[in-house]
Amino acid sequence: MIYADNAATTKMSEAAIEMMVKAARESWGNPSSLYAHGQKAKEALEKAREDVASVIGASPREIYFTSGGSEADNQAILSAAAAGRKKGKMHIVSTAFEHHAVLHTLEKLGREGFEITLLDVHEDGLVVPSEAEAAIREDTCLVTVMYANNEIGTIQPIREIGEICRKKGVLFHVDAVQAVGHIPVRVEEDCIDMLSASAHKFHGPKGVGFLYARKGVRLTNLVEGGAQERGKRAGTENLPGILSMAVALKESAARMDEAAAHLVPVRDRLIQGLSEIPHSALNGDPVRRLPGNVNFCFEGIEGEALLLLLDDRGISASSGSACTSGSLDPSHVLLAIGRVHDVAHGSLRLSIGEEITEEEAAYIVRSVKEVVAYLRGFSPVWRDLTAGKRAFIL
Amino acid sequence: MIYADNAATTKMSEAAIEMMVKAARESWGNPSSLYAHGQKAKEALEKAREDVASVIGASPREIYFTSGGSEADNQAILSAAAAGRKKGKMHIVSTAFEHHAVLHTLEKLGREGFEITLLDVHEDGLVVPSEAEAAIREDTCLVTVMYANNEIGTIQPIREIGEICRKKGVLFHVDAVQAVGHIPVRVEEDCIDMLSASAHKFHGPKGVGFLYARKGVRLTNLVEGGAQERGKRAGTENLPGILSMAVALKESAARMDEAAAHLVPVRDRLIQGLSEIPHSALNGDPVRRLPGNVNFCFEGIEGEALLLLLDDRGISASSGSACTSGSLDPSHVLLAIGRVHDVAHGSLRLSIGEEITEEEAAYIVRSVKEVVAYLRGFSPVWRDLTAGKRAFIL
Repeated sequence: MIYADNAATTKMSEAAIEMMVKAARESWGNPSSLYAHGQKAKEALEKAREDVASVIGASPREIYFTSGGSEADNQAILSAAAAGRKKGKMHIVSTAFEHHAVLHTLEKLGREGFEITLLDVHEDGLVVPSEAEAAIREDTCLVTVMYANNEIGTIQPIREIGEICRKKGVLFHVDAVQAVGHIPVRVEEDCIDMLSASAHKFHGPKGVGFLYARKGVRLTNLVEGGAQERGKRAGTENLPGILSMAVALKESAARMDEAAAHLVPVRDRLIQGLSEIPHSALNGDPVRRLPGNVNFCFEGIEGEALLLLLDDRGISASSGSACTSGSLDPSHVLLAIGRVHDVAHGSLRLSIGEEITEEEAAYIVRSVKEVVAYLRGFSPVWRDLTAGKRAFIL
Repeated sequence: MIYADNAATTKMSEAAIEMMVKAARESWGNPSSLYAHGQKAKEALEKAREDVASVIGASPREIYFTSGGSEADNQAILSAAAAGRKKGKMHIVSTAFEHHAVLHTLEKLGREGFEITLLDVHEDGLVVPSEAEAAIREDTCLVTVMYANNEIGTIQPIREIGEICRKKGVLFHVDAVQAVGHIPVRVEEDCIDMLSASAHKFHGPKGVGFLYARKGVRLTNLVEGGAQERGKRAGTENLPGILSMAVALKESAARMDEAAAHLVPVRDRLIQGLSEIPHSALNGDPVRRLPGNVNFCFEGIEGEALLLLLDDRGISASSGSACTSGSLDPSHVLLAIGRVHDVAHGSLRLSIGEEITEEEAAYIVRSVKEVVAYLRGFSPVWRDLTAGKRAFIL
């Protein structure tokens, strides 16, 4: 199997698995307990917090462990909204192509009276900082922009937006689920107030993530109960998961440069190869994108059929976000960058991992070319297009 | 180490660890993905849902996987409250000794205009069904009562309360975190509409739990985002954790009778042995309690000192809930059953597991007797008590 869906989830590293098992066997005490076995667990928990904090340039007290990226997104946004509501500031700035953990939370706030401005991400899938600045109002309580998009991989000008928010005194949250462990993320330099991350996106375990909240940012609880995580996230700490995440994050951070040096040329060869397919188009900026992300639209085909035939050839890929795969709607991300419905349906996301070889990349290009040609062979849309009965868009 | 704090957390079973590792190595695909690797993960997920459902007599579609018991409690209560609010029913019935995941959620609702009635749990730590019935009003939207208390282990008359709720048409939620896997729990027979459980309390992994919601009960999301868990709980499914939980739950259910047959006599010998300590008292009903739970108050000592000295002797125990161990307040559970502050401070919870031997139990009794006597030896309170300067309570 060539696994090219690392944006959906990654395989755990062996070191992360080993740590999870070791912790399950040895450090399974409740960190809130008084006896030595519990205190040993507590020490391990705080060591993991330091490790995680240091990778993003935060202080350990600014790290709150959660059950994943979605929970962290929800808590960050609801916390900023609660603080905003108290001050009569009920306007939030975000983008049209955020993850649904952000967008659906914003929709909920919209029903509660908040006004949401969604920034245009343009054809290249990039927010323009001056547009973010212009959108900020007197009553804006939060700007939330993702670090890198989960479908098209475009990396946003986070630092520029962060500086604007800092200057204007508006909280800045960043959904960095696709970025942490893959590209450098430094909360101080990037002027980030809150940041969400998920372990299973960087070869750590599922069901674990973290929320960074800068000192002074007031969090409200999403999960109420015990006094864990300085009273901000109830529930017995998932120590095996947390320790395993810390191992995976340190590994990913240490290998980041090397991984990117391998991935970027392979990614670019994939982009070049797939661009040779007639009436195809790369989605998102070709350069300002994650090292492992390739996302294309092919006119006249259905993404689902493409995926199933690639699966037959041993290639695991996706058409967009795994989180919405049950839905028949085209990707909101592709619509946000201006793709029309028909074209957005024929999309392919390849999110490659470090282990990919040149040969595998060449095999992917060959396979996609063949499968696209095969599918177009009996596509009524393609027949109409080539017969001039309808106009090509791409 | 004699681990007598299974109510705080349990050690994972080897089968559960093995399943977690196997899944991390083999079934790590994203269940929402279309390709075979993802679909295999999806099948494993649904098989685990069937396994979990069958243990509590539910249908698989009624099981929603969560990050643990606290999250499940929060979601269940907020869901009932949201439904109640729409109908103008803003009254909730609960008990004074629920877990903080329940009580703090109710407090939050209290601040939002809900009226909360907390039932008396009396000296024996048991809710009286007729009192629950009397507390239900026209505008009651929810009754939430824990199956077994996490500190004193008393098992509530859940079926009787469930029947009353069913008769009155009021939603009934049960925090069964301490019960599931330890005593028989059957949602149909018990007339339960929603139930919360946590894997790490029955030798499964931390960071995983489930919410049962009877068909027809409308859930609102706590975590918004992707369409996982039938749209009711966003976030990539923690498949290794979920599969591991299912294994642990099946194991616990299969061994439940045998475990209880071993635990109950050991528990009762512990109770008898500790009762021999002068001015001590068992907390909670001696019979209607979890097979592994022993909870005592000793007059004239501090619980913390007792725990630390027991730890020196290789016994891991607690004074109450691990979730609030950072707090200096006495246990709200012990206060709820009528213990005064001073006495509530001198508490000891032993929650024994299946592996305990008769010899270990005898060693615990001997150790507690010696440590209590030792601590009383230099306790000013004890000196005053024995000198008749203040009155004994126990």
